[in-house]
Amino acid sequence: MSQFPVIGGELQVGGMALTRLAQRVGQTPFYAYDRGLLRDRVGELRRALPDGIELHYAMKANPMPAVVGFMAGLVDGIDVASAGELRVALDAGADPRHVSFAGPGKRDLELHQAVASGVLINLESMREVRLLGPISQALGLPARVAVRVNPDFELKGSGMKMGGGPKQFGVDVEHVPELLSHIGQSGLVFEGFHLFAGSQNLRADAICDAQQKAYALALRLAEMAPDPVRFLNLGGGFGIPYFPGEQRLDLTPIGDNLAGLLHRARADMPQAKLVIELGRYLVGEAGLYVCRVIDRKLSRGQVFLVTDGGLHHHLSASGNFGQVVRKNYPVTIGNKVDAQEREATSVVGPLCTPLDLLADRMDLAVAEPGDLVVVFQSGAYGASASPQGFLGHPPCIEVLV
Amino acid sequence: MSQFPVIGGELQVGGMALTRLAQRVGQTPFYAYDRGLLRDRVGELRRALPDGIELHYAMKANPMPAVVGFMAGLVDGIDVASAGELRVALDAGADPRHVSFAGPGKRDLELHQAVASGVLINLESMREVRLLGPISQALGLPARVAVRVNPDFELKGSGMKMGGGPKQFGVDVEHVPELLSHIGQSGLVFEGFHLFAGSQNLRADAICDAQQKAYALALRLAEMAPDPVRFLNLGGGFGIPYFPGEQRLDLTPIGDNLAGLLHRARADMPQAKLVIELGRYLVGEAGLYVCRVIDRKLSRGQVFLVTDGGLHHHLSASGNFGQVVRKNYPVTIGNKVDAQEREATSVVGPLCTPLDLLADRMDLAVAEPGDLVVVFQSGAYGASASPQGFLGHPPCIEVLV
Repeated sequence: MSQFPVIGGELQVGGMALTRLAQRVGQTPFYAYDRGLLRDRVGELRRALPDGIELHYAMKANPMPAVVGFMAGLVDGIDVASAGELRVALDAGADPRHVSFAGPGKRDLELHQAVASGVLINLESMREVRLLGPISQALGLPARVAVRVNPDFELKGSGMKMGGGPKQFGVDVEHVPELLSHIGQSGLVFEGFHLFAGSQNLRADAICDAQQKAYALALRLAEMAPDPVRFLNLGGGFGIPYFPGEQRLDLTPIGDNLAGLLHRARADMPQAKLVIELGRYLVGEAGLYVCRVIDRKLSRGQVFLVTDGGLHHHLSASGNFGQVVRKNYPVTIGNKVDAQEREATSVVGPLCTPLDLLADRMDLAVAEPGDLVVVFQSGAYGASASPQGFLGHPPCIEVLV
Repeated sequence: MSQFPVIGGELQVGGMALTRLAQRVGQTPFYAYDRGLLRDRVGELRRALPDGIELHYAMKANPMPAVVGFMAGLVDGIDVASAGELRVALDAGADPRHVSFAGPGKRDLELHQAVASGVLINLESMREVRLLGPISQALGLPARVAVRVNPDFELKGSGMKMGGGPKQFGVDVEHVPELLSHIGQSGLVFEGFHLFAGSQNLRADAICDAQQKAYALALRLAEMAPDPVRFLNLGGGFGIPYFPGEQRLDLTPIGDNLAGLLHRARADMPQAKLVIELGRYLVGEAGLYVCRVIDRKLSRGQVFLVTDGGLHHHLSASGNFGQVVRKNYPVTIGNKVDAQEREATSVVGPLCTPLDLLADRMDLAVAEPGDLVVVFQSGAYGASASPQGFLGHPPCIEVLV
């Protein structure tokens, strides 16, 4: 995890030594997100992808208001998944023209809020079309809509599949023509399509393949659309490495692939802007989770570091969020990174459950109470995806450094 | 799930029809806990277990203040797992003499708070003994302590093992003699032992076996204790049925077993009160999770009910909390329980992740938007064990009916 430099054996976050950062924060546990790394990641993508591809941030990955505000200044749009996220995005200064709202089961109130905000609504069902006509009339503001399509293909090698087969997401491609004709009759403003096949994919070829298929599908559907396509969200799915042996995603073929699609789109759908929607890939590697060793126990030959953090703040690092087989996230002792003395160590939290496990028999520097345990790759699906109230421990703090 | 009666096709909670309860609550989703069922469960245990066995409520299972207050009036003591839970227990009127505090990695501040409160501290390590001497002196109040022992046996057939082998919980039995001598020298008030082998066990024979072994172990350790044993927590581990084919725990052999131990204890440890600590078993079956159908979708032959509730409120029902293989919790359409028309139905939430699944192709009454989906067996490890902030949807409400 070379993105955070080490000086004098200590991890540096945003140019600050970890122990000093912990003093600045005033408590452990905390999450720290590094502005420089966020900026670098967007820059890296801008260089690898052709000009003309728009980058959206899917804020579900990390909805901390300061992060959303910072990202809003770097990317071309924000994708929200609820009216709650919409509020945070608008507070953060996101331009509603470049905000899109996806999610199955949008409540009536949420649809009203979305229309009133002037954001693009990714339609997930016929019900939403039926509701948006009257809402648009009542508000005197036509809803801006794109159709989220459940494609007839899957994203191979994806951590989670969100398209293909029977799904709660989007509208099956077979039913999209009917939906498009309803949109035309309902006075809604049709802008385009959203295709999202899956997430956390480390195979460039699979992502390119999904993009190609998404493009072809959108082109086919565009013929039946009431208006020209102005917005085409090809999804995301770019993964980051978490576990030993995982290779970093190669952006070069993805850039080439998108350049080809962009070229074709100039002829096929000249008004369309092509969008890539990324969450985890933008923020995941820029974040750390930091907790403090409270106790060191030796039980039947096994070393346990009991920390003040754990599953209640970082469910996914405990292996309880979608993983089938638990694997260790990358972990280090943040104030003793270079220490020579090392040992097999289990890092656990303060909860009365064996699920509260941050590292299972990892090779770590020998640590004592007071030392800082760091979990890398924690910028996405961390604090907001964890049961913070569990067992009544204090919530964690998040800082943007 | 016969604990909730059905009248006119509608589930009754605390004597009230579910749709009326939903109107009273004023929003979905919500959790409802039934006072009558909580009272019945304690009564059933009192009848099955011999007089003289004390019942403790492990409030980690459901820390809703109203539930803790209600339970405090029914049981003989409350077990807390953090200073946060301790505060709720004391607010609820629990008598600190009958409150015990367990948990690895208790923070210094938490140890101070526990001593100042006068509750019993279940020691988990030598560090806690070292800290409690000076804390007791500083506060002018000797800490009341019991030793949580990591036994040299496991609870067979347990959903989660919390004893045996290397563990972060308690003190390995091999090291307890040394710890006991330190307690004697530190001016702490020794009260007894806590042995907790595991949880969610449906086999009475395994629970009886663990109780026998725990008793024998405590008796052996008592000889080395600085004072007579006055408190002996034999753990809990009583499971409830969640999935098809699971048999309800038979309390009769457990009652007989505890009667035998109680009889022996009168001679072996005449001052000791024997305690059983239960969380899930007391509250799990008394609770429902209720959410509303927002959309009904047919995708490639599969029916999806998209609701306003899901993983963010009820992580364990989604199969993402300790389960290796996801299985459906018992689910019904609460306002159409008896409906003749039924179909294979998947119930999902509003989140943009395929993990957000409350029922996978279950046989349910045909339902429409507005209907109420009910997840049974939701009184324990529900609201507090879920990532309520995930994706920015509104939090759920909890009511005690």
